[in-house]
Amino acid sequence: MPGNTFGRLFRVTSFGESHGPAIGCVIDGTPPKIPLCERDIQLHLDRRRPGQSRHTSQRNEMDRVRILSGVFEGLTTGTPIGLLIDNEDTRSKDYDDIKDKFRPGHADYSYLQKYGIRDYRGGGRASARETAMRVAAGAVARKVLGDEVTVRAALVQIGEHRINRDNWDWQEVARNPFWCPDENAAQMWGDYLDGIRKQGSSIGGVVEVVASGVKAGLGEPVFDRLDADIAKALMSIPAVKGIEIGTGFQVAEKTGPDNADEMRMKDGKPAFLANNAGGVLGGISSGQDIVARCAFKPTSSIPVARKTVDTSGNDVEISTKGRHDPCVGIRGVPVVEAMIAMVLADHSLRLRAQCG
Amino acid sequence: MPGNTFGRLFRVTSFGESHGPAIGCVIDGTPPKIPLCERDIQLHLDRRRPGQSRHTSQRNEMDRVRILSGVFEGLTTGTPIGLLIDNEDTRSKDYDDIKDKFRPGHADYSYLQKYGIRDYRGGGRASARETAMRVAAGAVARKVLGDEVTVRAALVQIGEHRINRDNWDWQEVARNPFWCPDENAAQMWGDYLDGIRKQGSSIGGVVEVVASGVKAGLGEPVFDRLDADIAKALMSIPAVKGIEIGTGFQVAEKTGPDNADEMRMKDGKPAFLANNAGGVLGGISSGQDIVARCAFKPTSSIPVARKTVDTSGNDVEISTKGRHDPCVGIRGVPVVEAMIAMVLADHSLRLRAQCG
Amino acid sequence: MPGNTFGRLFRVTSFGESHGPAIGCVIDGTPPKIPLCERDIQLHLDRRRPGQSRHTSQRNEMDRVRILSGVFEGLTTGTPIGLLIDNEDTRSKDYDDIKDKFRPGHADYSYLQKYGIRDYRGGGRASARETAMRVAAGAVARKVLGDEVTVRAALVQIGEHRINRDNWDWQEVARNPFWCPDENAAQMWGDYLDGIRKQGSSIGGVVEVVASGVKAGLGEPVFDRLDADIAKALMSIPAVKGIEIGTGFQVAEKTGPDNADEMRMKDGKPAFLANNAGGVLGGISSGQDIVARCAFKPTSSIPVARKTVDTSGNDVEISTKGRHDPCVGIRGVPVVEAMIAMVLADHSLRLRAQCG
Amino acid sequence: MPGNTFGRLFRVTSFGESHGPAIGCVIDGTPPKIPLCERDIQLHLDRRRPGQSRHTSQRNEMDRVRILSGVFEGLTTGTPIGLLIDNEDTRSKDYDDIKDKFRPGHADYSYLQKYGIRDYRGGGRASARETAMRVAAGAVARKVLGDEVTVRAALVQIGEHRINRDNWDWQEVARNPFWCPDENAAQMWGDYLDGIRKQGSSIGGVVEVVASGVKAGLGEPVFDRLDADIAKALMSIPAVKGIEIGTGFQVAEKTGPDNADEMRMKDGKPAFLANNAGGVLGGISSGQDIVARCAFKPTSSIPVARKTVDTSGNDVEISTKGRHDPCVGIRGVPVVEAMIAMVLADHSLRLRAQCG
Repeated sequence: MPGNTFGRLFRVTSFGESHGPAIGCVIDGTPPKIPLCERDIQLHLDRRRPGQSRHTSQRNEMDRVRILSGVFEGLTTGTPIGLLIDNEDTRSKDYDDIKDKFRPGHADYSYLQKYGIRDYRGGGRASARETAMRVAAGAVARKVLGDEVTVRAALVQIGEHRINRDNWDWQEVARNPFWCPDENAAQMWGDYLDGIRKQGSSIGGVVEVVASGVKAGLGEPVFDRLDADIAKALMSIPAVKGIEIGTGFQVAEKTGPDNADEMRMKDGKPAFLANNAGGVLGGISSGQDIVARCAFKPTSSIPVARKTVDTSGNDVEISTKGRHDPCVGIRGVPVVEAMIAMVLADHSLRLRAQCG
Repeated sequence: MPGNTFGRLFRVTSFGESHGPAIGCVIDGTPPKIPLCERDIQLHLDRRRPGQSRHTSQRNEMDRVRILSGVFEGLTTGTPIGLLIDNEDTRSKDYDDIKDKFRPGHADYSYLQKYGIRDYRGGGRASARETAMRVAAGAVARKVLGDEVTVRAALVQIGEHRINRDNWDWQEVARNPFWCPDENAAQMWGDYLDGIRKQGSSIGGVVEVVASGVKAGLGEPVFDRLDADIAKALMSIPAVKGIEIGTGFQVAEKTGPDNADEMRMKDGKPAFLANNAGGVLGGISSGQDIVARCAFKPTSSIPVARKTVDTSGNDVEISTKGRHDPCVGIRGVPVVEAMIAMVLADHSLRLRAQCG
Repeated sequence: MPGNTFGRLFRVTSFGESHGPAIGCVIDGTPPKIPLCERDIQLHLDRRRPGQSRHTSQRNEMDRVRILSGVFEGLTTGTPIGLLIDNEDTRSKDYDDIKDKFRPGHADYSYLQKYGIRDYRGGGRASARETAMRVAAGAVARKVLGDEVTVRAALVQIGEHRINRDNWDWQEVARNPFWCPDENAAQMWGDYLDGIRKQGSSIGGVVEVVASGVKAGLGEPVFDRLDADIAKALMSIPAVKGIEIGTGFQVAEKTGPDNADEMRMKDGKPAFLANNAGGVLGGISSGQDIVARCAFKPTSSIPVARKTVDTSGNDVEISTKGRHDPCVGIRGVPVVEAMIAMVLADHSLRLRAQCG
Repeated sequence: MPGNTFGRLFRVTSFGESHGPAIGCVIDGTPPKIPLCERDIQLHLDRRRPGQSRHTSQRNEMDRVRILSGVFEGLTTGTPIGLLIDNEDTRSKDYDDIKDKFRPGHADYSYLQKYGIRDYRGGGRASARETAMRVAAGAVARKVLGDEVTVRAALVQIGEHRINRDNWDWQEVARNPFWCPDENAAQMWGDYLDGIRKQGSSIGGVVEVVASGVKAGLGEPVFDRLDADIAKALMSIPAVKGIEIGTGFQVAEKTGPDNADEMRMKDGKPAFLANNAGGVLGGISSGQDIVARCAFKPTSSIPVARKTVDTSGNDVEISTKGRHDPCVGIRGVPVVEAMIAMVLADHSLRLRAQCG
């Protein structure tokens, strides 16, 4: 089964290359009679859009989304929702440099090995441009989840610089260009990132996402566990190399008594005294916050020259000019939110299918 | 779509509870005329089997697998392979203690919230017993991959104790009860784990898996990336809370120039000078070793008493007697291998379907 | 995606060959807390079982089904239901005759072309023996549908002999060995079929199925229409070569005014004045009875000699001795019911997923 | 799983309403490096296009397809192919008549029952307009199949008037406005259909499709049989109510000896002496021509008044003015071809995946 579809019941199929005429997606399975308009989607696309501060790519792309189907008089009809964004700022630049060279850290080599052909313009299908459709689909997924569910992400680490968790303030996230929840950290990161950019370098980062208001019962035993589907969703984002749920890798160093999320009755209901599990028990949501983190590698497209080979078998050097993000983790924040929203919408419908 | 099936073209559907009459699975999509017998599968089941050292559960289960279909005169026929293992050592013990109490860290609470009913005997479907069928299916997946692909895992960390990577010796892995590649570490771990067990406690661990001989081109753009499917495969294993591909979370602290896997021609072929990517570029295998790691939480079933609530809404204590693993990461090693083999077999068939 | 799974949310994966140790299936997606025991399933298997009259195969197979998982204390748990039937009456007969010859009308030739290997014993996977698992799964599907939905089939034609529709009596269906709803026709068919059998011949037939109490809204636009899924379900039954919904092929000769199912208010509700549509409008159930028919070809295994070739490329003759049905349409009746029940159960869950 | 996707490996996901801004589809799984341009697709769309003779709808729609992705420098890249057709001739007509009334034979009632909302403009998603994307996708499927496979359909019956099979001439099919292979029949049908149209009526028809050059081995045992997938494909076309493979319903009246497709060696290869099976044995192609037929009901949109009810619960009359086809079977011919091409392309990739 081809790999450009995500989800089983809330189902997103995307298409489009970085420098083709347009990118788009089809969202199938949306329940009927949900209010939806282009503005609901544009709102989230604008958060992902490049060119909004000196810390992200200067590519100027308006990313205007059009709803082509599945909505009638402001309500979803239950039929597939077609979304389209025309590609605008596709400079007719000279691609000769990357046409024949494999850029380290990019998909150039593996795509050519697989398909024997590749659309090298701007990375083609492998460009992070496809993440715009994830964000668009995520906006629809939020509508399916309704107001009781909140999905929020933040950048919690750039390079070696982590936030101070005691300073965590969700309000702060929208106030700085890093989606950073710690005001102090955000100030420091600005200078740090200027330095990275001036060196012609780039740096990695870590995004944390929290979904609140998620009811218990989402996810399935054995293979399609909620955390397994979250892991897939996040690892499918370009540049992500690590995933954690709840306590994550630190569980390796914890003992059973310490890691147990004990329970006590509170206000007549069972309540957990900790959330090492990150909201998932046996692959099924427990009603606690879903907490996940993912690590973004540093941008591979950098001005500093790197060794590589070309398609003719010569040892060459390559350096990337142009409009790239010094830390792709920043613009990854709305993408991470979108993927989590998609997983939760999908499993919400699955829960309703089986358990009413 | 129900969640007990893994894979698209090499497709495993499993069933069975810990204390029901049997567990089993159906493997669909296996190419025809591959030599396969029960011994090929039993070999790997025996590696996962409990009761083989003092460091794993003393449950005595022979786990004899039977091939019920899909094999004729020693060769696969291309039709579905049915596998069955009868449950033998299901002690008719008193389950009253766990019947009504939610064991912290277990799926008791989330299953009951989802289904409104649960088979509490030995954890039912949520028991790690289901991983036997993963190992069985993984053995068939290896046959599909053929001899040129090797999938090997090892335990590289227990609690705070990591191996010394300079001592890595794959031969050593089968010689100690921990699947540890570092002889010195293995010796130390024995004493350490005795201590943990005597305290009635448990401890986490990290498993690393390496797949060699994997050809370039496995995986698909955007959603069904090879690394995304690996992340799902590993996160679906009970007790896993974190996943890394290649350099993993350390990418957050790396710069672009450092993280780039540069290339040079070698013996007339393109060769990589490093493998930070863990063998996957843009979601597609590059021909390098596939390298992944996952963190196992400490066993939740522990003799030390923990606070919980019962189904009647009372605050209670619970402690688990009996035959459990102090470090589930140990027996996780063959399960990790199996899941990786399944992902690779699936994507090998997918590559052949699309690209011939 | 391998082809041994049916359904999207009520999902049946089957395995097993005619002369292997057992046949079985896994049913995934069943809602929890539905009462289910082996007797519920056995009831329907007994209706399909051979050897019950002189008009069906004399193979003596008890077809005792065992539930291996997914049911606890008499209720479904929501986890996969494993079903198993041991093969008993697999005579160790001499297969040399069919081992190397392609039986006309059988899958011998096409299987060998596809797989390069085939389990020739009793037809292997291509044997109609697999339909036992369809009937078993159909019994579970009925439980999912609940008592308000009735799925009943009948044989309405053998050779040129059709029933008189004015004599239709559902009570009669269980009283004769043909599942015929017309007492007079049934009597005639007995003599007719004796004649066919004595000639060493076989004959085709037509089965009609009616599902009542099906709510409006099942099915999806465009591809997964309810009638499309019914067509697939029925055409997947061995020996079926034609499918009709509602008026079927007769629509070709009808005019628009005649074929329209007009509506009028009745008891305060919209009511249809006819059912040419067979209960499906635009691929979605309308609340009327679902009506479908399918044509079974005559049994291909016949004592009369037929021309064929063998695997060595020789022109030869073949005739089949033994215990075969002169009209496979008869035993097809409970299989047709089962497939319809599976489609309806699947789409019921799908409707609930999307529309609540 | 939502129902707007067809196929497993050659996978088409469509979207769009009759009177929305555009219709489109995403084709995923196409092998790389296949020559493809818009003209290849337009060719087939033009065959389906309305307004080409007095016997089809006078709606004037150019149906200009644009390829938005997945093709680079004239070759497929292996990434998803996005296709888009803008809706042009969507008259801003008064829909008040059909807005509140259920048109007999249409999906108005069932859609509203299912979704609680419907886009009534031109039938919305239920309009046959969606079949344009089937034809477009079918054109790509033909490219996947290559030149050795030919898929051709023809109209063989209108009302009671069948062709004379002795006159069958594939060259004739493109020469008359009915896709009729019998020149004499075509002449008669012209007058007959004029009469039907003048009465404000409509009439049904039968389409036959033949796929030649299909290799043996396509299709899978048990559920995803080639004939089962063909049945689903054809029954999913709007207005189709019956499906036959090979001899079809006539098998009911045939004896085993008559229905057997005997074999003899011919030119050193096994050859069949007849093709009652329609090219499929045990669900798997045999290498013979694939032959199928489907019955189209008469157009439901007719000027003659019919009884119905409205959404307020009143008994009313309805008649449809405007530009409709008197026999939808005519324009169904290229749609039938497209669906068969899609099924064959899908199973070709599946065969290659499993059997190399």
